[in-house]
Amino acid sequence: MGRVAIVGVGLSKFGRSTDMNIKELAFVAIKAALNEAGLTARDVDFLSVGSFGLWQSEALPAVVVSEYCGFENAGTARVEAACASGSAAVYTAANAVASGQAKVAVALGVERMSESPQEVVVEMLGRSGNFFWEFENYGLTFPGYYALYATEYFSKYGASEEDLAEVAVKNHYYGSLNPYAQFQKIITKEDVLKSKYVAWPLKLLDCSPITDGAAAVVIAAEDVAKSLTDSPVWIKSMGVAAGSSNLSRRKDFTGLEASLKAAKMAYKAAGIEYERAAKYLDVALVHDCFTIAEILAYEDLGFAHRGEGFILAKEQQTYVGGIIPVNLDGGLKAKGHPIGATGVAMAVEAVKQLQRRAEPGRQADIRNGTALTHNVGGTGHYAYVFVYSSS
Amino acid sequence: MGRVAIVGVGLSKFGRSTDMNIKELAFVAIKAALNEAGLTARDVDFLSVGSFGLWQSEALPAVVVSEYCGFENAGTARVEAACASGSAAVYTAANAVASGQAKVAVALGVERMSESPQEVVVEMLGRSGNFFWEFENYGLTFPGYYALYATEYFSKYGASEEDLAEVAVKNHYYGSLNPYAQFQKIITKEDVLKSKYVAWPLKLLDCSPITDGAAAVVIAAEDVAKSLTDSPVWIKSMGVAAGSSNLSRRKDFTGLEASLKAAKMAYKAAGIEYERAAKYLDVALVHDCFTIAEILAYEDLGFAHRGEGFILAKEQQTYVGGIIPVNLDGGLKAKGHPIGATGVAMAVEAVKQLQRRAEPGRQADIRNGTALTHNVGGTGHYAYVFVYSSS
Repeated sequence: MGRVAIVGVGLSKFGRSTDMNIKELAFVAIKAALNEAGLTARDVDFLSVGSFGLWQSEALPAVVVSEYCGFENAGTARVEAACASGSAAVYTAANAVASGQAKVAVALGVERMSESPQEVVVEMLGRSGNFFWEFENYGLTFPGYYALYATEYFSKYGASEEDLAEVAVKNHYYGSLNPYAQFQKIITKEDVLKSKYVAWPLKLLDCSPITDGAAAVVIAAEDVAKSLTDSPVWIKSMGVAAGSSNLSRRKDFTGLEASLKAAKMAYKAAGIEYERAAKYLDVALVHDCFTIAEILAYEDLGFAHRGEGFILAKEQQTYVGGIIPVNLDGGLKAKGHPIGATGVAMAVEAVKQLQRRAEPGRQADIRNGTALTHNVGGTGHYAYVFVYSSS
Repeated sequence: MGRVAIVGVGLSKFGRSTDMNIKELAFVAIKAALNEAGLTARDVDFLSVGSFGLWQSEALPAVVVSEYCGFENAGTARVEAACASGSAAVYTAANAVASGQAKVAVALGVERMSESPQEVVVEMLGRSGNFFWEFENYGLTFPGYYALYATEYFSKYGASEEDLAEVAVKNHYYGSLNPYAQFQKIITKEDVLKSKYVAWPLKLLDCSPITDGAAAVVIAAEDVAKSLTDSPVWIKSMGVAAGSSNLSRRKDFTGLEASLKAAKMAYKAAGIEYERAAKYLDVALVHDCFTIAEILAYEDLGFAHRGEGFILAKEQQTYVGGIIPVNLDGGLKAKGHPIGATGVAMAVEAVKQLQRRAEPGRQADIRNGTALTHNVGGTGHYAYVFVYSSS
């Protein structure tokens, strides 16, 4: 595709928002992103809005945000790919620019999950699996889905709850350094292991929380990007794939086929060897809705051989200074997981890392100037993988 | 943008579907479209799914359709822009191809509105206006919104209920010739005028129905398109704009600003003079969710001067042989309006018309080989206008 770049990023504080509606949450992120880009909302040709929104009273988030934030000259649409909605919004906006249809586009992700009671949110999330067979008939909700993955992974490769706990400890550690994170408290392995079971072997501290939040990126065509900034971050490649929504049709529960496919697609387009990805990339943001999901991602993305992802965690190779630093913003686990905002927030973090703007203690060493984001929707139904580059 | 073409189209029968779920409805349209293109689902790189879906039990239409229809190598996302969701799906798929991200993409629109009780559907549609101010506080639903437009239009320009009835009669006439239409019965002006008031001055026969249905188009890059068919239909240009969701912030109720903006954008990119659009275009599909909406569209799209659109209807200039034939498939009014499918179905019809494949009696004279589609979401919140060309 033609060269397109991110020229501004913005986030709201992630967490429980009792004083802002979705328009206002969106405004916080959009204003910050446009300010960074040196643009106003009137300069934007297209606004894509990643929002799952089943728990929100506003049925048309794209319209209310577009109007409230002053996008007078932009067309807009909402894009939904369950928990990968934010990445789908980035994909859509990037394509609108790369096709020449827009010179400047904004991808926004926004979600206000606390608008509905928790049991409604849990039910709605459950419907993001296979509604008819698995939710309606067996009552599987998301911790249950990922618990199936964890149990098969444990039994096949000998990993344990302690290994999963390493992921939670790391992500909370980095969350504690990220002023935008929902949880800014360091936790210990013991804290994780002593927390309540949600769906064995996953405990409360293995799970990402329910979050309100917004994230925005401003995407521009090459000529515009170069006129606006000396440090654009290029969208080097995008991989997108889908996987079965029937667990019964999956080969095994030790990886997500969609992630693997999307990664290979993105690596190929960016000229990265799958086997050497961890060496090539400076930093990665992966979809850790549960601790087991981060381990699976290590393997699906080629950072570790199949069955060896948990060793990366155990050896703390995904901290700054390790083989491949992962989720230095706290990840979904500690930064929070406002569904539609998550994928866009990953793009925000990739940009900050490549521009060496992350807060002290959570900045990766940037050598190749290359970052990866990996966002999954449902239990591997949608996968989006992006490679970002500072050159 | 790079040249992209539609190389296959498909529809399900529109109406009330009691025997097919959304996967199966989608399959009917997709199979037909892929067959026309000479492709299989495995040849497709990206699937965009236009679906509003608030009334469906399946929360992830893109995933269930993708899997059921065998899109093994495609990424996917749902795109939503209220009643313009289908056009947003075409826009997204076309951009994925034009950007080089996909060689072949499918835009699907699918909706199964009869899955919920009618009062739920009406409430959900009402939320597609401005939920907080206008639905929650004043109880405005869609017939009410458009009734406000009709009353201001009547009072300003002297049009009458009889003029609106002309639109319903025309669209039912063409619906009677379209085997895919929900209503295939000719109606008279008297039938319309005697039908029950829904929201004065709009009567039952001024309103589009609740519909189940699916539509699909296969979109290909220029080289692929040329290798597949001798008669590709090119997406010449796309215009997309948004308008205020607050009726109180609109200048007047005699036109939709978003439609006007989107039309001008599409005309400019296609090299069509706004004032001469009716002369240039061979046929148009416009968003006639209510009869008054078709009249407003005539004016917003430049087919008539402001305040004179109803004269086009009165003089029957939008039939085959008139100044500009409009909605020769029956329109939303008679073909039906399965929300997410509507915009894609317009693309399907534009292709059939340009390829001279419409059924006898409803085929436009094709001179310039150019067709237009116009799809509105909400009460003018979203507008998408496309120009299609056979060369």
